[in-house]
Amino acid sequence: MEQRTEISSLGEFGLIDHLTKNIELQNASSILSVGDDAAVIDHFGRQTVITTDLLVEGVHFDLIYTPLKHLGYKSVVVNLSDVYAMNAIPTQITLSVAISNRFSLEAMDEFYEGVYAACNAYGVDLVGGDTTSSQKGFIISVTAIGEVAPDKFVKRSTAQKGDLICVSGDLGAAFLGLTILEREKKIFLESPEVKPDFENEKYLIGRMLRPEARKDVIEFFAEAGIIPTSMIDVSDGLSSDILHICKQSQLGCVLYEEKIPIGEETRKAAFRLNELDPTMCALNGGEDYELLFTIKQDEYEKLTPNSDIRIIGYMVDAEEKAMLHTKGGNKVAITAQGWNHLKS
Amino acid sequence: MEQRTEISSLGEFGLIDHLTKNIELQNASSILSVGDDAAVIDHFGRQTVITTDLLVEGVHFDLIYTPLKHLGYKSVVVNLSDVYAMNAIPTQITLSVAISNRFSLEAMDEFYEGVYAACNAYGVDLVGGDTTSSQKGFIISVTAIGEVAPDKFVKRSTAQKGDLICVSGDLGAAFLGLTILEREKKIFLESPEVKPDFENEKYLIGRMLRPEARKDVIEFFAEAGIIPTSMIDVSDGLSSDILHICKQSQLGCVLYEEKIPIGEETRKAAFRLNELDPTMCALNGGEDYELLFTIKQDEYEKLTPNSDIRIIGYMVDAEEKAMLHTKGGNKVAITAQGWNHLKS
Repeated sequence: MEQRTEISSLGEFGLIDHLTKNIELQNASSILSVGDDAAVIDHFGRQTVITTDLLVEGVHFDLIYTPLKHLGYKSVVVNLSDVYAMNAIPTQITLSVAISNRFSLEAMDEFYEGVYAACNAYGVDLVGGDTTSSQKGFIISVTAIGEVAPDKFVKRSTAQKGDLICVSGDLGAAFLGLTILEREKKIFLESPEVKPDFENEKYLIGRMLRPEARKDVIEFFAEAGIIPTSMIDVSDGLSSDILHICKQSQLGCVLYEEKIPIGEETRKAAFRLNELDPTMCALNGGEDYELLFTIKQDEYEKLTPNSDIRIIGYMVDAEEKAMLHTKGGNKVAITAQGWNHLKS
Repeated sequence: MEQRTEISSLGEFGLIDHLTKNIELQNASSILSVGDDAAVIDHFGRQTVITTDLLVEGVHFDLIYTPLKHLGYKSVVVNLSDVYAMNAIPTQITLSVAISNRFSLEAMDEFYEGVYAACNAYGVDLVGGDTTSSQKGFIISVTAIGEVAPDKFVKRSTAQKGDLICVSGDLGAAFLGLTILEREKKIFLESPEVKPDFENEKYLIGRMLRPEARKDVIEFFAEAGIIPTSMIDVSDGLSSDILHICKQSQLGCVLYEEKIPIGEETRKAAFRLNELDPTMCALNGGEDYELLFTIKQDEYEKLTPNSDIRIIGYMVDAEEKAMLHTKGGNKVAITAQGWNHLKS
């Protein structure tokens, strides 16, 4: 009998590990391969960063509440975020879309308006792609290319024991934005005459529908002479993403709950929405597109000029595991509960 | 009232023109953008070629008769073919897949076996990608990256009047392979007990399901000191692809029907299958992944050592249009009737 193993038994990261475990690189120019925010390719002494994302309607986005222009913007930004997470500067993208005949030319124009807005905002060029039809739904594939000075790229696997763990901006807002949109969608489907009121939730919904990538943080690093020892962007949630750094650097970590940056709007909305715990939103929500990175302790002072970066913990030996020190004085293990599209 | 323009009124190429007509490049490193087989990026004096394709189940492939291993192989090869069509050498790919829960881990292993087989055969590295779920069907996005010595890349837009039009290999076989597979699928759906016999059609079906890219031709160019004046790979069909060169080079062309290379198996099968015209299969079939290129007339002799390249015509002024001189002595206009996924 033929064997059938359900993909869901591995999850996304398990599947990637399984499918890529036997890769043997053949080109000397392939500096860094599968397993980071982006790959790094050597081009005659300078280095190119490349990353790609596939977004599927109904899995990654819901067109009931996602304006196509925002979707175009976000499709670009999430890839640029991966390039910045390598400490690189994005320069080009390619964009492929597959669409069903449900979509008109005007709809495509709206989508591309967002794509070009993101290209302009971040100074990248759309240089190629593919446009085709789908039997169902809207499918988007973006590949982003960037540049980095030789060996200045920052991996996930190079954090050192004692390094400080830092994060930009605030976390959990996008998850709450999504929660609000899902709630309003449900109300709308039940009672189409009720008009949603998003006035007080603009920040949260904006973080979900039209996120920005932290170009400014990478520019700050260059000015301040900081090269993080490891870095990742927060796309799956703080828990999941710090665990990537821990696993790949073969270390553990301590995070302090009270240090995790959570905005005032996020806190208020979390309590309003069935008393969600804001810390849980930050840990497990994802889609924040903030930068999570580690620096050597003695570089601490270099961060001072940037009030938008918080130190939230430090790296420890692997035996000490990844632990969260709660406000109540407890120590709990950090587990990955981020968005995992392949787990049912 | 909101305007609604059907995408099908533009077709794929019309849609791409429409969506990309206002691109203004921002990076000096963006040497060549949308509108060729691949984009070219300058990296500190050397040049990188990048191309991407999105393949959707039910639109680009039918899993009823496509073994997953072949699909993996072909997904890579069609992108490498675009890199070769720039006179460049592919070095890396990224691969993203979206799958529904219909697919098991074993199915994914088979697909990736084909992907890695192609990577090995062509000496490229899989360096990244994305693995996610789809609501329906199998979606594949491949981006290929290659290298080319500065300004040695070959565009579609640079053919000159009088240049010879050449093509590698033979044409029309993949289209007949597809026709045979579609016919057997129909028989199978009506009478599942009938076993298909592909013994005499291995070549044609192989050309469809597991094509190769013409790495050898690019290597021959390097050895023979040939730089084509323009080049494209034959993916949409000879008609459609020579028209790309004509349009982008602002020229016309003369093709001789008797010179179009068509294999013996292709001829026989064409007549067997409801008396299809083999020339029409070559002109409009597509998916041959041969290289179609132009060279200066005085480089004619350099081609002699390669018996797998045929001269099929020459470039003329735009006013003379793109014409086929038939075996019967007629002159007919060449029109694009290639595969056009967006036209219904």
